[in-house]
Amino acid sequence: MVPDDLSTTIRMTQIPPAEPAPTTLLAQSGRPRAVFAYALMIAATVATLTWIRGLGPITAPHTLLSPATPPPSAANHHELAHVLLALSVVSIAARAVGLLFQNFLRQPRVMGEITAGLLLGPSLLGAASPELYHFLMPDAIAPLLGVVAKLGVVLFMFLVGLEFDGRLLRGSSHATVAISHASIVFPFLLGASLALWIFPRYAGPNADFTIFALFLGVAMSVTAFPVLARILTDQQLSHTPLGATALACAAIDDVTAWCLLAFVSSVAKAQPGDAARTVGLVIGFLVVLWIVVRPLAEKLAARHAGPLTQSGLALVFGVLLLCAAATEAIGIHALFGAFAFGVAFPRHPTLGEQIRERLEDTVVVLFLPVFFALTGMRTRIGLVATAGDWAVCALIIVVATAGKFGGSTLAGRFMGMRWRDASALGILMNTRGLMELIVLNVGLDMGVLSPTLFAMMVLMALVTTVLTTPVLQLVWRPSKT
Amino acid sequence: MVPDDLSTTIRMTQIPPAEPAPTTLLAQSGRPRAVFAYALMIAATVATLTWIRGLGPITAPHTLLSPATPPPSAANHHELAHVLLALSVVSIAARAVGLLFQNFLRQPRVMGEITAGLLLGPSLLGAASPELYHFLMPDAIAPLLGVVAKLGVVLFMFLVGLEFDGRLLRGSSHATVAISHASIVFPFLLGASLALWIFPRYAGPNADFTIFALFLGVAMSVTAFPVLARILTDQQLSHTPLGATALACAAIDDVTAWCLLAFVSSVAKAQPGDAARTVGLVIGFLVVLWIVVRPLAEKLAARHAGPLTQSGLALVFGVLLLCAAATEAIGIHALFGAFAFGVAFPRHPTLGEQIRERLEDTVVVLFLPVFFALTGMRTRIGLVATAGDWAVCALIIVVATAGKFGGSTLAGRFMGMRWRDASALGILMNTRGLMELIVLNVGLDMGVLSPTLFAMMVLMALVTTVLTTPVLQLVWRPSKT
Repeated sequence: MVPDDLSTTIRMTQIPPAEPAPTTLLAQSGRPRAVFAYALMIAATVATLTWIRGLGPITAPHTLLSPATPPPSAANHHELAHVLLALSVVSIAARAVGLLFQNFLRQPRVMGEITAGLLLGPSLLGAASPELYHFLMPDAIAPLLGVVAKLGVVLFMFLVGLEFDGRLLRGSSHATVAISHASIVFPFLLGASLALWIFPRYAGPNADFTIFALFLGVAMSVTAFPVLARILTDQQLSHTPLGATALACAAIDDVTAWCLLAFVSSVAKAQPGDAARTVGLVIGFLVVLWIVVRPLAEKLAARHAGPLTQSGLALVFGVLLLCAAATEAIGIHALFGAFAFGVAFPRHPTLGEQIRERLEDTVVVLFLPVFFALTGMRTRIGLVATAGDWAVCALIIVVATAGKFGGSTLAGRFMGMRWRDASALGILMNTRGLMELIVLNVGLDMGVLSPTLFAMMVLMALVTTVLTTPVLQLVWRPSKT
Repeated sequence: MVPDDLSTTIRMTQIPPAEPAPTTLLAQSGRPRAVFAYALMIAATVATLTWIRGLGPITAPHTLLSPATPPPSAANHHELAHVLLALSVVSIAARAVGLLFQNFLRQPRVMGEITAGLLLGPSLLGAASPELYHFLMPDAIAPLLGVVAKLGVVLFMFLVGLEFDGRLLRGSSHATVAISHASIVFPFLLGASLALWIFPRYAGPNADFTIFALFLGVAMSVTAFPVLARILTDQQLSHTPLGATALACAAIDDVTAWCLLAFVSSVAKAQPGDAARTVGLVIGFLVVLWIVVRPLAEKLAARHAGPLTQSGLALVFGVLLLCAAATEAIGIHALFGAFAFGVAFPRHPTLGEQIRERLEDTVVVLFLPVFFALTGMRTRIGLVATAGDWAVCALIIVVATAGKFGGSTLAGRFMGMRWRDASALGILMNTRGLMELIVLNVGLDMGVLSPTLFAMMVLMALVTTVLTTPVLQLVWRPSKT
């Protein structure tokens, strides 16, 4: 194992005091000499500085400056202070509101973190106190926070992929797969149909109608796997057949929805003739990942024992960021590369766990809240202004729920579940949360969604996710109680 | 203890397969129904999509777009791909060159990481292949990488402060303190005197002569505590009296040099009349940190047991970033706030260690290399063009070494050390590495250093640090061997 430089070095500070006092090297008459030395030093310092100041001022070589000279950057420094302040506020607010949601509203904490992001945005803080909002979240730092947020989403999606369990897919019955795909197809079709009505009013600047319809379909059919899993744990459902079915369905949904979104993004970003090329590149990326990177990584992992070294971690980061950069360059979002690398990562007994230990807390506590806050900054609920807008917003919520809840429930019932179980499954699958926000940000970045529609869809994601727990408790009680 | 949301949720994926198969909820006749369901879904999908496409294309509402609409951002996406690619390359290159340095050149690994940053800069990669350089490190992403690098330096300085051991200072003899201060005063005075000659040719655009002289003095007197500690471990000197003296001196040097640099920055950035105000604000910050934040943190830490929760970590991040933002806003660099908070952080038996476990590897592997790479991007060795420039560069190296090595050696000898021990101490104190780069970047940001002088000083930092180990081996052998 390679020793780790700075870990060793920083920790070393604590060792010496336990050792023999360093004075063994020094003469015993330290004190008088020290006093004398100090007098000498002070005299010399004062004399030299006086002499130097006497010779100044000398003119600076302004004419010699190369064009590469950086600007004085007083502005940059204020910028950094604002970035650090924003990171601080975002991180603490997310945690505080998250704990509130968890302890008082019995909601998954991540819903509170998302809400904190909205609270810090122009819709609430910005409306209540524009001065404070512009001080805490000036528009100028949005691109800088954006880098942190995107890096956070990339790392988070890697962790999601890393913990993705292929056995959920392989072990699923035909019935589970059918229910899962039904729970994609129903909302997808309803979403795409809804596009007919809302495209003329709410499409983004880059939206072609077909792309818009496909994107709305995907956005309607996302299930938030991490939030769903959290709700199942909270409700003590994760070890029940219902929980297992819901998790398996959500896992299949996840993969399907990301594939669909990748397809839609690649078509949306490409020039008309280039869509085939983009899809080809994506397939090429996946083939290289699966046939070259994965076996290599498994060989390395098989030889690996003991704690993960910093060099090992550097390799993981390097390949992860390279995958993210590759998918971003191809024309689909960086998060796909990160997720795909996480799924392809070797299933080693301790390696994944060690990576998670090093990354997860920092990503969840520091990086993801920045993503939520940026989403909040981009969500201008004020754009949903007229009664007509609010009606459309309500329609979107109804359609999303009808597609996801209705589709899953009907499919479950059709496959032989009791109504009670089937409807509980439908309620669970209607959870959107975090994943929906990621999809919506991709849509806003691509220019497929207008800011107004983005705000409506964010509201839809919040409402459907927040309703999951209370509605589930009305419909379904675990048989144990 | 509060359960941690996403950690629980993500991990949950692995539970279900061990549970009874979910089909218990479903009718046994799953298969034929599934086939029928699929046929239905496919037919419905094809029919609906055909119908929707038949109704399109519909015109998009371009006239309705609000001014808040984000730009199509094709450029932004390429930017993100370049940022991710750069992070990937930087992280892997730093580790690879670091391992080369460690295994083949017997240098501390961090020297290799710094060198990797220079190799990726315009001086080497940029000179060898401008196309590759502009592809890997386009100028446009420098501000985005800058945020990551600055966040990295803030987190790193917090870790350095966290591991700072006050006992090294309190346990030091008068002799150690005197040697340490001598090793600051000598190079400081020599550096300030050198300013007389080099100010007219190499000062930055914002440099007033007095500030320039003070800054050059500080830059000459920095010791790289982490690199020094690493060298002591490599040479098996850390448990010897020499190692203990060197570490104690370096710790005192660190605090003194940071105080001096904070003073110089506050004077340099302020308007002439504002210097007193800045210094007052810095003192106010330290007083609040020590009298309000520290006791509160100790109370919280005393009640703390068991593993650090994500909420605890969020609080630590929040206060840390707030301290960094405060010092940055006051007008000295963010790193001072982070370092000061690290020093003020409660000395709890497990808390510091747990924070370190979560942060250190990621900071060292992912964030610090970005700082080295950005330093490399800013170091244009080509600016050191003429023989005269190189002579000045050599002079700087000689003066830096004379001040730091000479000052420490003479002070050690004066305080009663044998020549051999005193000179070994001097060689060790001449280590600059990482800390010097941080100081130099502050100087370049403030406009005190010109890019040419920055390049010279970076060379000086590299040369003095790289020479430490081989010269030490010539002069001093541990008595054990």
